Amino acid sequence: MNKNSEKIYVTKPILPSKERLQKYIDVIYDSNWLTNFGPLHELLRKRLASYLNVDNITLTANGTLALIVAYKILNVKKVITTPFTFVATISSMLWEGIDLVFADIDKETFCIDVNQVEDLLKKDKTIDTVVAVNVFGNACDIEGLYFLKEKYGIKLIFDSCHCFNVYYDNKNILSYGDASTISFHATKLFHTIEGGGIVFENPEYHEKAERCINFGLETHYKITELGINAKMNEFEAAMGLALLEEIDFILEQRKKAWEYYYFKLKGVVEFQKRNDKSTNNYSYFPILLSSEEVLLNVLSTLEKYNIFPRRYFYPPLHTLPYIKEHHKPIELNNATDISRRILCLPLYPGIDPAVQDIIIDVIKKEEEHA
Amino acid sequence: MNKNSEKIYVTKPILPSKERLQKYIDVIYDSNWLTNFGPLHELLRKRLASYLNVDNITLTANGTLALIVAYKILNVKKVITTPFTFVATISSMLWEGIDLVFADIDKETFCIDVNQVEDLLKKDKTIDTVVAVNVFGNACDIEGLYFLKEKYGIKLIFDSCHCFNVYYDNKNILSYGDASTISFHATKLFHTIEGGGIVFENPEYHEKAERCINFGLETHYKITELGINAKMNEFEAAMGLALLEEIDFILEQRKKAWEYYYFKLKGVVEFQKRNDKSTNNYSYFPILLSSEEVLLNVLSTLEKYNIFPRRYFYPPLHTLPYIKEHHKPIELNNATDISRRILCLPLYPGIDPAVQDIIIDVIKKEEEHA
Repeated sequence: MNKNSEKIYVTKPILPSKERLQKYIDVIYDSNWLTNFGPLHELLRKRLASYLNVDNITLTANGTLALIVAYKILNVKKVITTPFTFVATISSMLWEGIDLVFADIDKETFCIDVNQVEDLLKKDKTIDTVVAVNVFGNACDIEGLYFLKEKYGIKLIFDSCHCFNVYYDNKNILSYGDASTISFHATKLFHTIEGGGIVFENPEYHEKAERCINFGLETHYKITELGINAKMNEFEAAMGLALLEEIDFILEQRKKAWEYYYFKLKGVVEFQKRNDKSTNNYSYFPILLSSEEVLLNVLSTLEKYNIFPRRYFYPPLHTLPYIKEHHKPIELNNATDISRRILCLPLYPGIDPAVQDIIIDVIKKEEEHA
Repeated sequence: MNKNSEKIYVTKPILPSKERLQKYIDVIYDSNWLTNFGPLHELLRKRLASYLNVDNITLTANGTLALIVAYKILNVKKVITTPFTFVATISSMLWEGIDLVFADIDKETFCIDVNQVEDLLKKDKTIDTVVAVNVFGNACDIEGLYFLKEKYGIKLIFDSCHCFNVYYDNKNILSYGDASTISFHATKLFHTIEGGGIVFENPEYHEKAERCINFGLETHYKITELGINAKMNEFEAAMGLALLEEIDFILEQRKKAWEYYYFKLKGVVEFQKRNDKSTNNYSYFPILLSSEEVLLNVLSTLEKYNIFPRRYFYPPLHTLPYIKEHHKPIELNNATDISRRILCLPLYPGIDPAVQDIIIDVIKKEEEHA
C-alpha cells in the first residue's frame, strides 16, 4: 500500500484555496450574473488571452464543444486525423456527420505521420481538413503540416487539449492552424471545472463562434447564425480565474514531479520524443514499456498499492465498434503497437515522491524480468 | 424611474443563500471530485427524480444539449415542430442535420396545432418525429399528439424547458413522450447555473444517454457508443441542490407575483389559454396586446422606467435567415400574429409590486389610447 492507502490515479484535480474561489463567487452574488458572457467570463477571457499570448480566445462549456464549434465554423466535411488521441477528437466529428480517415502516427513522437497524411491527400480530393493532435503537449510536425496546407489547400485544426502553456517556435502553440482547441476539464493542468477554448486564426471567426455558442443570437431579437448553447458559465470562469492566480506554483510542482520520474526512469523505458522547438508543460508522463505483457504486469502490481496509471490512449481509435473500414485505408501499425505499450504515470502537483518511488521500482523490476 | 433605478428584466436569476451553497462546495473540496458523475451529480439526480416524480432523469450541461442528445438517442431524422418557441428548439435540430417542417400554433394556447400536424403527416411519410413545446409551462394537446403517435407511428418529444414542476393529468409533464427535455438555465424557475435534463420513456435510453454525454465510454477502456461531452459538473449540481432546498419559497413567491399581474390585467389584455388538465408553475406572464403598435409603445414607455419586458417569442422562427422554403409548407398566420403582439412581463421571486404597478399602469394606458 502507499502510505495513506488513498487511491492514486493518473491525475488529481487541483482546487484553488477556498478563499480565492470565494472572492470570485462573491462577485457573482454581487452582479447576480450567472452565465451568458458575464463579467467573470469576460475577465477570464482577457486574462487567459494575455497569459497565453494569443489575440483572442472563445471560451466554451467543455473541450469537446470547442472542437465541435471549430468544425462547424470552418465548415469541415472530411478529415484526416490520428487514431492515437482521446476519443472526443473523433467522436465529435462523427457525431456531427463529418467523415474521417486515419493516418498512422510517428512511432517516436506519437503525433500524426505527415507522409501518410500526404499519401491520403493525393488519393482523396474530397478531404478538406487535417485535425492533428499535439499529444501529451508535444508539438506535432507543424511545419510539415503547413507545407501540406499550402500544397493541397486544406484547413488545419490542432487539437491542443493537452497544451496549456506550450510554446512552439516561441509562439503559443494555440496560435497555429485555422483553429486550435484546448480543454479546461477538471483533470487538466489548468481547468475551469468543465471548459474549453478555441483560438481562430481569422479574428472574425471569434465573433461568429460567440454567436454560435449562444444560439446564433446577435441581439435578443436578431438571430443571424445557426447556433447551439456551448457557453462557459460564471462559476466555471470563477474557477479559472482563481486557478490562474496559482498557476506558477502548479507548473513548478508539475515540473518537479515530472523530472523526478524522468531522471530515475531514463534508460529503463522509452520516452516520447519531444519536438525540439516545443516547450514542455509537464502535463503527462507517458512511458513506453517493452511489451504489453510488461505493461499488464506493471498495472496489476501497482493495483496492489492502490496505484492506477492510465493506458493513454488505449484502445487505438481505429478499433472502435463504430469505426468503418473506409476510415482506415492504411495500416496503422504504429498506433496499434504504441497503444498496447504506453502508460501515463500519475502526475499532479503535490504527488508524494514515495508514491513515485513505488511506481519507479515496480517498472524497473518488471522490465528487468521481461 | 422605478424606485432604485435598477434595470428590471423579464427575469432575474435566483441564488441560494451563500451558506447553503458553501455547504455543497465543501463537499466538492472534500471529495476532490469536480465533474464526471460525481457524488453531488448523483445526489441531485436522485433528489430531482424524487421531487419531480419521475423514474429517472439524465442531467446535461445545458437544455440545448438535452435536446441534441434526445434527438440522437431517438435517431430523429425529420421533424414537425412549432415556430413559436425559443430558437434552441429548432437550431439544435438543424445543427445536427435534422430536417424540419413547421406547423402553426393554436391562437389561444400558443401550442402546436394538432390538425396541422396531421395534415403534414399525411403528406410526408418521411417525417418520423413531432417535437412539441409546452410553451410558458402550458401543456399542449398531449392527447391529440398521442393519437397521432399511434396512428402514424411517429416519435414524440416534448420540449418542456419551461415546465419545472408542471403536472398534466396528475403526472409530471416530463413523463410524457418518448423523451421530454427541461432547461435548468440560470434564468429558469429552478436552475443549475447552466444545465438541463432528459426524461426518457424507455429506461434503457437513460443508460445509453449517460454514455453518450460522456464520450461514449462504458469504462475507461471500453467505448461502446458514439458520444460527446454534455455532462453537468459538480458545481452546477451543487447549485441545483442548494436551490432545491429553497424551492417552496421560490414557487410561492412566483405565484404571488403572477397573481398580482393576473387580477389587475384581467379584461385589459388577452392571456394564454391554459390547458385545463395542466397545473401552472407561474414561470412566465405572457400577455397579448391588441396590436404590435401598442406593444412597441408599451416597450418604449417602460424603457424610460428602466423596465424591459421581453418579446417572447419574436421573431417567429419561420422568418429566420437560415430557414428554407420547404420548412414552411403551410401558412403560419397564428405564429406570425401572436409573435408580433406578445410580451412576457418581468416575473421573479421578490419583484417589487411597485414595479409591477408601473408596468400594469403603462399597459392599461397604452391599451386605452389604442
